Parts: sequence; C-alpha cells; structure tokens
Amino acid sequence: MADFPIRFGIIGCAEIARKVSRAIQVAPNATVSAVASRSFDKAANFAKANGFPPDTKIYGSYESLLDDPDIDAVYLPLPTSLHLKWAVLTAQKKKHLLTEKPVALSVAEFDQILKACEENGVQIMDGTMWVHNPRTHKMKQFLNDKEKFGQLRTVNSCFTFFADLDFLKNDIRVKPDLDALGALGDAGWYGIRSILWAADYELPKTVTAFRNPVLNEAGVLLECGASLLWADGKIATFHCSFLSNLTMNLTAIGTLGTLHLTDFIIPYQEHQASYTTSTKPGFNELVTGWVQLPSEHTVTVDLPQEACMVREFASLVANIKKNGAQPDKKWPTISRKTQLVLDAVKASMEKGFQPVEIV
Amino acid sequence: MADFPIRFGIIGCAEIARKVSRAIQVAPNATVSAVASRSFDKAANFAKANGFPPDTKIYGSYESLLDDPDIDAVYLPLPTSLHLKWAVLTAQKKKHLLTEKPVALSVAEFDQILKACEENGVQIMDGTMWVHNPRTHKMKQFLNDKEKFGQLRTVNSCFTFFADLDFLKNDIRVKPDLDALGALGDAGWYGIRSILWAADYELPKTVTAFRNPVLNEAGVLLECGASLLWADGKIATFHCSFLSNLTMNLTAIGTLGTLHLTDFIIPYQEHQASYTTSTKPGFNELVTGWVQLPSEHTVTVDLPQEACMVREFASLVANIKKNGAQPDKKWPTISRKTQLVLDAVKASMEKGFQPVEIV
Repeated sequence: MADFPIRFGIIGCAEIARKVSRAIQVAPNATVSAVASRSFDKAANFAKANGFPPDTKIYGSYESLLDDPDIDAVYLPLPTSLHLKWAVLTAQKKKHLLTEKPVALSVAEFDQILKACEENGVQIMDGTMWVHNPRTHKMKQFLNDKEKFGQLRTVNSCFTFFADLDFLKNDIRVKPDLDALGALGDAGWYGIRSILWAADYELPKTVTAFRNPVLNEAGVLLECGASLLWADGKIATFHCSFLSNLTMNLTAIGTLGTLHLTDFIIPYQEHQASYTTSTKPGFNELVTGWVQLPSEHTVTVDLPQEACMVREFASLVANIKKNGAQPDKKWPTISRKTQLVLDAVKASMEKGFQPVEIV
Repeated sequence: MADFPIRFGIIGCAEIARKVSRAIQVAPNATVSAVASRSFDKAANFAKANGFPPDTKIYGSYESLLDDPDIDAVYLPLPTSLHLKWAVLTAQKKKHLLTEKPVALSVAEFDQILKACEENGVQIMDGTMWVHNPRTHKMKQFLNDKEKFGQLRTVNSCFTFFADLDFLKNDIRVKPDLDALGALGDAGWYGIRSILWAADYELPKTVTAFRNPVLNEAGVLLECGASLLWADGKIATFHCSFLSNLTMNLTAIGTLGTLHLTDFIIPYQEHQASYTTSTKPGFNELVTGWVQLPSEHTVTVDLPQEACMVREFASLVANIKKNGAQPDKKWPTISRKTQLVLDAVKASMEKGFQPVEIV
C-alpha cells in the first residue's frame, strides 16, 4: 500500500488541518500533495510551518487544487457552512472526500453532498477521529460481549470545554454564518456519535432536547444536551458545552457490564489509551465495599488515532482506485445518522423541547 | 462523648439494619440498647447474628421498644410506607430519629414526620451514608474552591444495579404497598441528593422526568431519570435503575474544574476512598493529548461512612440531651429538599413529562 499512497490535497488552513495533515504524513498509505488557501502566501506558510514535503503544491485558490489531476483525495477542514459548496465540487472533480465534522448544517445538506459523492463514485468519510483509535475497537468488543456486558441499557456522554473570551468572540464555531451549529455541531457531534456507536448505530426512536440551551447573541448554541430513547427502553443522554471545564466522559451501561472512560475523544496520551470495564460487580457481605473493582485496560496505539482515520480512508480510496471497488457505505451511513440526530436535537428545541421522532 | 453514648433502639430487622447496627456499635458515641421486631424470635436472632451486646433488650413489638425509657434514639429501617406511622410515634415518644431513606413517600408525609419531630424536640436525620464520608467533605472543598473549580455548571449522577429475578419479584422496593417509590426512592434518592449536594443544596427551578420510566406490573418504578434546571443555567441529570449493571458515577463540572468518581454511594473500599479532580486541563500543541491529567486523591476513612453518620447523629442528640440544644435543622432541611425533588420527578411523569416547578 505504501508504494501507492493516496495523494491528498488540503483545502483550507484551519487549526485542525495541522493535526490532520501530520496524520496524512504519518499514515503509511497517504501523502500530502497539495495545500490550498484563498491566499497563496497563507498556503505556502502553512506548508512550511507543518513540514510538508518540498514538492507539495501550493495553491492560492481551492478551485485550482480541485483541478489538479494528481490529487486523489481532498481533506476539507473549512467552516461547516462552506462544506456544501466545496464538498459537492470536490466530488464533481472526482476527488474522494475526507471532511471535517459536522459534515453539513443539516441532513438535507448532507444528502446533497452524499448524492454528489455517489454520483461521482467517490468515497466520503467524516473526520471523527476517536472511532478509529484501536481502543475503540477493543471497547466495542466488550460492548458486544453478551456475557460480559449483556444488553445495552443506557449511555451518558459528555463533552465540554471552557472557551476563553477570544474563542467566544471570534472562533468560527460561534459564528452563525460559519459554524451555525455551534457547540452542538462541534462538541455535541461527538456525544451523539458515541451514543450511536454504543448502540451499534441503531437510531433512537425519539430525541428530546434539554430545556437549557445557552445561545450567544447571534443565536449560536454554546451549550445544550438531549435525551435519546429507543423502542426497547434504552435511554442515552448527552451534554455539550463551550462553557464548562474540559471533560469528555463516556459511560455505557448494560444489563451485566459497564464501560467507562474519561478521555474518549482525545486520549490523555497519544500512544496508549485506557478504559475501564466491570462485569457483575457486587458488594461484600455487609455492603460496605465492592467485591470486584472495575478493571482498567490499556491499549497501545502505534499510530495516532487521526492517522488511523487517514489510513482507513486512504485504504478505501485505494480499493476503489486499484480494484475498482465501490465506495464504502458504512462510514457515510454513520455520518448521516449522526447528522439525523443532530437535526432532531435542533428540531426538538424549535418545538419547545418536545420529543422529535427520528424517521 | 464515649462515656455518654446515645442508646439506640432498632425497629425492624431489615438487611440494611445489619450494616447500620454495626455502625452504631462502631461509632464512639453510640450503642445498641434494644432491637424490636414484630416477632420476638426474629429480634433475638437478629441480635445474636449481629453480635449485639448480651444486655441488648429484645422486643417482640415496636411499641414496646418505643415505651422503653432507656432508649434515646431509634433507627428506623422499615419499608417507606410504614415510616409515617412509626416515625411520628417515635417522635411522640420523645425518641430521636435516624430513619432510612426515602424518609417518606411524599413531601406531605415528610412534613408530618418533621412536624412531629419539631413538636417533640427530637432530632431527625435520614440514612444517606455517603454524605458523611470524609471523602465527601474533601470533595466539597474542591467544589467550593473558586480558583480550582469555578462556578458549577452541570452534574451527572447515575446509580444503577442489576436486580435478580428474586429481587424483582419479592423485594420490598418493588412492592406498591411497601416502597412505592421503587427505584426512584431507593437509587434515585442518591442521585438527587448528590446533585443537590454539588449545588450547595440550592433547589432547581424545574424538574423534568425522562420519558422512559420502566414500571413493573404493579406500577412501581424500576428505572427512571430526570433533568434539573436552575435559574442561573446550571443543569443536572440523573438516572437510576434496578435493571442495569451496578454503576455509581458522579461528575460535577464547573467553569474551571471537574470532579469525578465512580463509587460515590458505597466506596470500593471501606477504609479509603478516592476521587479525581482536574483544573483547567488543556491539550498539547497539536491537540493529540492532554497536557495535564486529572489527579486522583485518596482519603483515609478511619471510621466507616455509616459509622460517621451515626456519630454525627449521636453527637447532635447528645448536644440536645446534655446541653439542651435545639435539634439541628441542617439535616432535615437537606432531606426535605431531596424529597421535594423526588416529588417533582413523580409529578413530571404524571404531567406527561412536562417540567415541574419547585416552589
């Protein structure tokens, strides 16, 4: 695979692009071939600051990068409101698409992007990194273990961070014309995804937003949450905020077991990641202590999770390019479900916090 | 204090009474003086099985214990539906009252009990043990630290355990005539209390039950949850269940800090207890890891938490008896607030899961 690396073009020089462009360089089957900004100098500086190969092409416009026949795939870290235009154009230019999350501002927009990708036979994947961490696969094995975990009953997911005044004033994630979904699109995306992940991507029946969303003056969400209910009685809740201390907890409780971790989106350390499980713990005879403590598991992470993501994406692209395979449907299906729940949270808010059915 | 121990009478031989009667024996200022059951033999066997002093008085009726002038205080582990009758009678007999939680089936009942205690000048305290653990005081110091924790923004509390078929069929906590509040009264009590504790016992403005309560055939709650909102934007959620693996997580997030523990009601070990805190953690330069990990704190627990509870209660009683002090109002106020929220959760369910204002 390494002798046939997927050639990435990066459209936009956002902060997050630094991390992902490193991941593209680190992944064994990918390489950074070009970077574009609306300003040539900005793109050139970005390439230099991030140690791109000397032969990386620098473009002063997104269009020119998309016209480059030597680019296989595009990484799109632009603000969400620009995704529709540039994702569709990327697909139309027959480039495969790795796009930052949220993929779109709504499912309707998402479906336009997906349609363009399908019509042009290109792969689409969103930039949710943690699901590609080897830890995530290990945790999933636990959740799938009927004897150790039983049947999923409840999930609680929380992602908050304390944004400083500069962020709250200037970051694209608080601007209605850039990332109009605010904390819901940025932090809530992870909470929703983690819940769906734990539920094997079975969509909930209803979504009910909590009655406390905090919005800025421009109407962008800075904090919110919701409860999700399934027909079988499962319940999940998530909370996301730009206004509370950095916390990223995930707890999934089954009939027989519990999975818990406190760094699910970005592990404390890059090269190893931990989680705890417990199966049927109980109390001692007088109920003054536990007879079995949750056990901690540590997974070695040879490749950073964002590089695992790039590797997975590039591998799918290579399969299309080399073997004429069809684009994989698993990842866009997961993205779309996340977006569906996101829409439902917003709809519930608009309906006075009533439950919204997911259809 | 030890030379003037508060003499306890235990009314009812419930499972929980084993743990608390040990606590009474272990506490430096308390002693078990009598035990009553509706059957003399049952009381005698209970005294023997739990190593009560040989001179412990055995009563074949609750009334006769309450008539014993050498009893200072009563520990009441009876099913909740019996609390009103026996708590009021205990107070009328001028005995101080340590009662299992929930104190009553409703605030209205609670207020009748409280009135009887006040009219008779006796102390009342509920049997919530974890708030008396020295760990809890340490954790509270962290929550009160404006520089380390900031302002409280959100709390999530979860207490679930997987009840076996025998429990679900026969336990008093699933019987409408005994513990009609089911999982809400038993497990939810702790969740609500932990939220109020974190919020410095400031009552929320509204309580909204989640739309998924699970009830048994007799209409008793086996699983439920709710969100609590405060006027200042704080939000808290709790989930309680008899149907999920044993889990007891508490997370309180402030603007600057996070408190987290996974054994808040019954610590994993009796003689030491841990929790984690973090203050303004951040990410490394590429956002691929954290620059500061949450730190774990371990507190030595010289006296088991339930014995700390007994010691606190007995100390208040001794102060009344020896110094003519007035009964303390802090603990009953806290109990009543817990009961108020509990009522609101039920009311929200009855109102179709609409928010219920707490007045």
